[in-house]
Amino acid sequence: MVEAELALVRASTAVGITPAEAAEVIEIVLAGYRPDPAELARRAVASGNPVIPLVAELRALVDVGDLTASRWVHRGATSQDIVDTALMLVASRAVAAIDTSLSEVERTLAALADTHRGTLMAARTLTQQSTPTTFGLVAAGWALAVRDARSGLPATGTGTGVGRGAALPAQLGGASGTLAAFREIGGSAAARELPARFAAELGLQAPLAPWHTRRAPVTRLGDALASVVDALSQIATSVATLARSEIAELAEGVGGGSSTMPQKQNPVQSILIRSAGQRAPALAAELHRSAALATDQRPDGPWHAEWPALRELLRLALGTAATAAELVAGLRVDTGRMRATLDAGGALLLAERVALALSPVLGAAVVTRLLDRATAGEDLAALLLATGAVDEATVADLLDPARYLGESDSIIDAALLALGHRS
Amino acid sequence: MVEAELALVRASTAVGITPAEAAEVIEIVLAGYRPDPAELARRAVASGNPVIPLVAELRALVDVGDLTASRWVHRGATSQDIVDTALMLVASRAVAAIDTSLSEVERTLAALADTHRGTLMAARTLTQQSTPTTFGLVAAGWALAVRDARSGLPATGTGTGVGRGAALPAQLGGASGTLAAFREIGGSAAARELPARFAAELGLQAPLAPWHTRRAPVTRLGDALASVVDALSQIATSVATLARSEIAELAEGVGGGSSTMPQKQNPVQSILIRSAGQRAPALAAELHRSAALATDQRPDGPWHAEWPALRELLRLALGTAATAAELVAGLRVDTGRMRATLDAGGALLLAERVALALSPVLGAAVVTRLLDRATAGEDLAALLLATGAVDEATVADLLDPARYLGESDSIIDAALLALGHRS
Amino acid sequence: MVEAELALVRASTAVGITPAEAAEVIEIVLAGYRPDPAELARRAVASGNPVIPLVAELRALVDVGDLTASRWVHRGATSQDIVDTALMLVASRAVAAIDTSLSEVERTLAALADTHRGTLMAARTLTQQSTPTTFGLVAAGWALAVRDARSGLPATGTGTGVGRGAALPAQLGGASGTLAAFREIGGSAAARELPARFAAELGLQAPLAPWHTRRAPVTRLGDALASVVDALSQIATSVATLARSEIAELAEGVGGGSSTMPQKQNPVQSILIRSAGQRAPALAAELHRSAALATDQRPDGPWHAEWPALRELLRLALGTAATAAELVAGLRVDTGRMRATLDAGGALLLAERVALALSPVLGAAVVTRLLDRATAGEDLAALLLATGAVDEATVADLLDPARYLGESDSIIDAALLALGHRS
Amino acid sequence: MVEAELALVRASTAVGITPAEAAEVIEIVLAGYRPDPAELARRAVASGNPVIPLVAELRALVDVGDLTASRWVHRGATSQDIVDTALMLVASRAVAAIDTSLSEVERTLAALADTHRGTLMAARTLTQQSTPTTFGLVAAGWALAVRDARSGLPATGTGTGVGRGAALPAQLGGASGTLAAFREIGGSAAARELPARFAAELGLQAPLAPWHTRRAPVTRLGDALASVVDALSQIATSVATLARSEIAELAEGVGGGSSTMPQKQNPVQSILIRSAGQRAPALAAELHRSAALATDQRPDGPWHAEWPALRELLRLALGTAATAAELVAGLRVDTGRMRATLDAGGALLLAERVALALSPVLGAAVVTRLLDRATAGEDLAALLLATGAVDEATVADLLDPARYLGESDSIIDAALLALGHRS
Repeated sequence: MVEAELALVRASTAVGITPAEAAEVIEIVLAGYRPDPAELARRAVASGNPVIPLVAELRALVDVGDLTASRWVHRGATSQDIVDTALMLVASRAVAAIDTSLSEVERTLAALADTHRGTLMAARTLTQQSTPTTFGLVAAGWALAVRDARSGLPATGTGTGVGRGAALPAQLGGASGTLAAFREIGGSAAARELPARFAAELGLQAPLAPWHTRRAPVTRLGDALASVVDALSQIATSVATLARSEIAELAEGVGGGSSTMPQKQNPVQSILIRSAGQRAPALAAELHRSAALATDQRPDGPWHAEWPALRELLRLALGTAATAAELVAGLRVDTGRMRATLDAGGALLLAERVALALSPVLGAAVVTRLLDRATAGEDLAALLLATGAVDEATVADLLDPARYLGESDSIIDAALLALGHRS
Repeated sequence: MVEAELALVRASTAVGITPAEAAEVIEIVLAGYRPDPAELARRAVASGNPVIPLVAELRALVDVGDLTASRWVHRGATSQDIVDTALMLVASRAVAAIDTSLSEVERTLAALADTHRGTLMAARTLTQQSTPTTFGLVAAGWALAVRDARSGLPATGTGTGVGRGAALPAQLGGASGTLAAFREIGGSAAARELPARFAAELGLQAPLAPWHTRRAPVTRLGDALASVVDALSQIATSVATLARSEIAELAEGVGGGSSTMPQKQNPVQSILIRSAGQRAPALAAELHRSAALATDQRPDGPWHAEWPALRELLRLALGTAATAAELVAGLRVDTGRMRATLDAGGALLLAERVALALSPVLGAAVVTRLLDRATAGEDLAALLLATGAVDEATVADLLDPARYLGESDSIIDAALLALGHRS
Repeated sequence: MVEAELALVRASTAVGITPAEAAEVIEIVLAGYRPDPAELARRAVASGNPVIPLVAELRALVDVGDLTASRWVHRGATSQDIVDTALMLVASRAVAAIDTSLSEVERTLAALADTHRGTLMAARTLTQQSTPTTFGLVAAGWALAVRDARSGLPATGTGTGVGRGAALPAQLGGASGTLAAFREIGGSAAARELPARFAAELGLQAPLAPWHTRRAPVTRLGDALASVVDALSQIATSVATLARSEIAELAEGVGGGSSTMPQKQNPVQSILIRSAGQRAPALAAELHRSAALATDQRPDGPWHAEWPALRELLRLALGTAATAAELVAGLRVDTGRMRATLDAGGALLLAERVALALSPVLGAAVVTRLLDRATAGEDLAALLLATGAVDEATVADLLDPARYLGESDSIIDAALLALGHRS
Repeated sequence: MVEAELALVRASTAVGITPAEAAEVIEIVLAGYRPDPAELARRAVASGNPVIPLVAELRALVDVGDLTASRWVHRGATSQDIVDTALMLVASRAVAAIDTSLSEVERTLAALADTHRGTLMAARTLTQQSTPTTFGLVAAGWALAVRDARSGLPATGTGTGVGRGAALPAQLGGASGTLAAFREIGGSAAARELPARFAAELGLQAPLAPWHTRRAPVTRLGDALASVVDALSQIATSVATLARSEIAELAEGVGGGSSTMPQKQNPVQSILIRSAGQRAPALAAELHRSAALATDQRPDGPWHAEWPALRELLRLALGTAATAAELVAGLRVDTGRMRATLDAGGALLLAERVALALSPVLGAAVVTRLLDRATAGEDLAALLLATGAVDEATVADLLDPARYLGESDSIIDAALLALGHRS
């Protein structure tokens, strides 16, 4: 918030509102000044927001001796101008860091997709093994999910991001969003120019108009952050499942210990990410709720409810993205175990293929009966041979999981192309 | 869902998977067929989704006499291919209807902004009157909020929308998302081509890859719908406030009656929209939650939780947009009452201006004292005159609300320009 | 709602407000009358609630020929009196049905706990096998969870429930909650007596005072319903996990089929219950939100948001309880597979025991080293024997999972006692 | 958590598990020890919870010189035993503080109800003035809402609370909830006795059985805390409405200042409480979600999601209750303004009464017509007199708001009786 107040002084000076000398004094005195957050929080309760005690403190600081620059601090602005702008500033930096972690996650997953395009594993739907797939295809899907999430992040101007969301705007409107005080002090031209100058000082987007009660910039940001956590939590949920003792096809690089059981390696990174995945949606929803209930020219509660929600959402997305980068970097893929699962599941994972291939020959009813017997425990290969309709080679081919991967390879190619991955 | 199954048959025929004769039979038999939703719902419980009983029914229908086209129905697809695609299809049509209502709302509000650019009213922040503003500026902010919401809707190809969100994709992956069954039946080229053909049949976007557990298309849609409801609820919340008996600056065209009090005109449109605004965020959050918990190749519960959430969200957005169009079309603006409020609030609404103008002259401490006395009930004009520092004309000007509207006019112009409004 | 209106007429007659003849006419004409819900819903939009069009319809019905009983219909009441009372009435019946299903679930689980107190299985914490436990203990925990949930349900007066929550109250306050109209018509004594009479007519609790904006009766009910779904969803989540192809220790009696893979038996009951478990919390939260935002003497949106939330929550709890009763009744427990998992997990599931028993003898560092080697794949029994500190019999005992079940048996006993279960 | 670990040592000593000397050493060394929360939080990420690094630290501390008491620290317990118990301990203290604040709020409101039983004001429903009521009745409703909320709080054994909720239990089950390690060390009798001893050491309730995945104690607590915030937010919402500039019937004792407008007195206490009211429901819902998704013997994410939700909910309830106590203590009731509003609303607030009284005389249609004309602006008294059906005295009585308060007085009496208020 100090940064936002300083940017306001600089922008006001640039458009001729604030005298240069006052600006200089403020600049010098406040350079490097950091308020005490706990003290500020305490005083914020009485005034309903932290800007009021902060401004009081800043003004006291800049009035040294004969110099009375204090009235040029926060001049013309309202508390919400500063809080909203500061939130966007913090968000902008957090988003850049999140994007960096996500690009690592994406790169690692793309490489895994490429490496494991031939690694057979059992697909599972509704908890049950279904047909063969490859771990490469799974990883490609994860990478695409991360890319989807990145592309929704606001553009932050750092150049490396793929964010296509609208950039984050500064807020400047004064008491009731009319810029009246700025016009009163500096005239119409200065007042019109000021918001864009202010935004430029902070690397934020110039607002089309004040958005004190028009909260799409906040909800869009929240939705994008929740989407980041969604994508990572979906990956973590699958990792936690595949790391279960009975499946054990994946393991985290560094498992968490147990306070009592020395043999355990808990997938704690996945678990922490999943727990974030459970929490983020409600925080994004809180921002929508605030937007939906905003009233008048500044709302009576909904605006205040935004602060903790957005702060926690930024924290969750930052922490989750960093943890996910570690998780995928350390992921241990047990290809032998994947193959063993597939073999144990056996011919039944090829049931769909058998039905497709043999129904025209044997009739659907016969095939269904054979598959039911196989489900009950009989050997499908033997049953098929016994029909006399197919020879051993055909049966072997029909029941070879590597021969029933569909377009998994070309889907991986398409994904890697979309991700710009070069193997 | 019948439409999606038919589109699948058509697309499969186009790429050479389904024989044309079978397709023809299916087409003829199912044309205009409508399943019984209640019966389908009942059977869906046992199978966990409605596609399984629907396919059974469709297959029974198309096997007439010697014609056995049934195995070409739903061939190669999985239930989720059909449910997801059907949801996107329904959503696509709903979004087009929502956008039409929103464009009406936007147009009406833009016209109100233009008409009422000179209509003075009291701005209110944190429930308290703050400074003067105009109803035109308020309406312009509402119009921009609606435009923001529209721009997040998925592009639906109807040409009239301003939606810049990604278009809604069809879903097609087969049992585990590898397209294996399609390849088995029709070969690789046909399998690769099929999803785009399928999407084209339905006017949906071709998916880059199956998205059974990569749910950004659903969460993005949900976020956009929630944002629509946010924007309208924010307007409705302000209308309900301004329609309170003690304010009465706005009224709905058709107030709701009371079951007991003949004199009441309840702002029921606003109230219903507000109630939607309270509910929509949790529904959008449900979709994020489902996305975050999706596991394996098809999830064990989260996918099922999406259906009622998305359906209800579409209903809320549709109903809310239609009601909002009626609300703004019928809105009664009591300009006299607005002016009366401003006059009753009196000179104190100009306190900020007085402080800005006179602090350099009288000193901040003196001005604060005068304003405190005015807050306590004394006449501010008289107090100012008594200082001897200002003459009557200056005081009259200082306390004229029409002279302290800041850039409200130019902000309205910028908004109308952005909205493409021509007066 | 018709029932509530009739009860009001009856109660009003009882306290002397409504003339007996009018009451008789109303009673006769409306007996068995059922409004058309779709038509009512349509008209409810214009008036903001369904009572207004309903009352209009009822009044038209009772004015037959010379008989003009219509002014005694809904006399003195406000719409919210009827809507709230009708919701409580519906809820009361639903709660009784839910409790019946839950008592079945509880009984079945208690029996399973008793039967399977010796059925060994691997416990799992944070996805990893930890130590031995029994399926009996697991089932006892589930039964206690169901009992916890039942005990929070409102008392419904059916005699069979264990609900200790406050009974559901009728609502009666008139226009602004003062009972003014009733007093105007019938005098103070009648007005005072009326709410309790009204409640008694419907088997609901007499309210201490009108609760139009004091919504604890609604939030308490919602919390209790969500808690029911929680308990069942927790069971279903465990069942779905234990039914995974690779674990397969539990299976549903009737698995759901797949639209493509004939061999699959999806645990659809668990999946549907889990999906309810994901959704219910947000619905209960909606009721709290409505309570928190209730304003004035009747709120401007929050009240309306309660209706769909409560209705959906009742549906979810009803459906989930019925499905859960089927699920546990049909549950197939594969005790052989449970034992096989335990044996495959092997000695490592006894690592905690080994550490406790041998650290004092061998030193903690030595034991840790041995367990690390066992975790890496060596045979723990052999390693222990090789230390020379323990003989074969001791090792066999130490590594026997049946000897490390702690107090599982006495915990089951305590649970069955609390549940009133007799074996 | 240190307290819980110490209580475990003490309880274990009491039942004969831990040697007294070891317990003594631990007691002496750890007395007054406070871990560094930031450092603990940092290390908690790697292990997935804070107990693992804490135990490591505690163990290192108690091994001084030859004394090696470390293996008796945390012996037999699992991390969740400590985290859950510590949460219940913190919650128990917070609940006692919350209850103290609430009892103040309740007392103040009861006194206001008594004092203002004759203070007439306009009731408002759906934003519109409806009929007369009294501020006493409003305050009585608020007091009852607070009492409702208090009665749902868990009993904390402090003697002053009215909490009828189940007391908060300690958690103790060991690795998988079987108490196996405790039995291994100390035998069956000691293991059975231990949980109750442990609970007694901390003033918590003895658990019937471990509740690692049976989370009703957590959801019940969360629901009770949310209900506290609901009740206070409902009051604050009404205060904020009645404090609006145009209504101004209530004001906060200490209004919040504005950063720009010297005349403003924002109702910041109400606004902060309202903002808590918006947020609390989602936090309570998070706890239900965690309960619903708990799986196995310890869950893989849902448990972790509980911690921040419960912590924030405790903070919100604590802060909100304290702020509410200040709010109601300082509340300024402008009885003159209340009366003025009523008089300005005029005869129309008696429309219901007029309709009830005169419809039998003049016919409903005539009365409706007269009321419509009055709604359009004509003088109702004059219109009534002009009918010739009523004399001036009757009209004056009919239109006297003090004569149409229904049972407000007796409802206040019933409420004060229920609250144990003595005037």
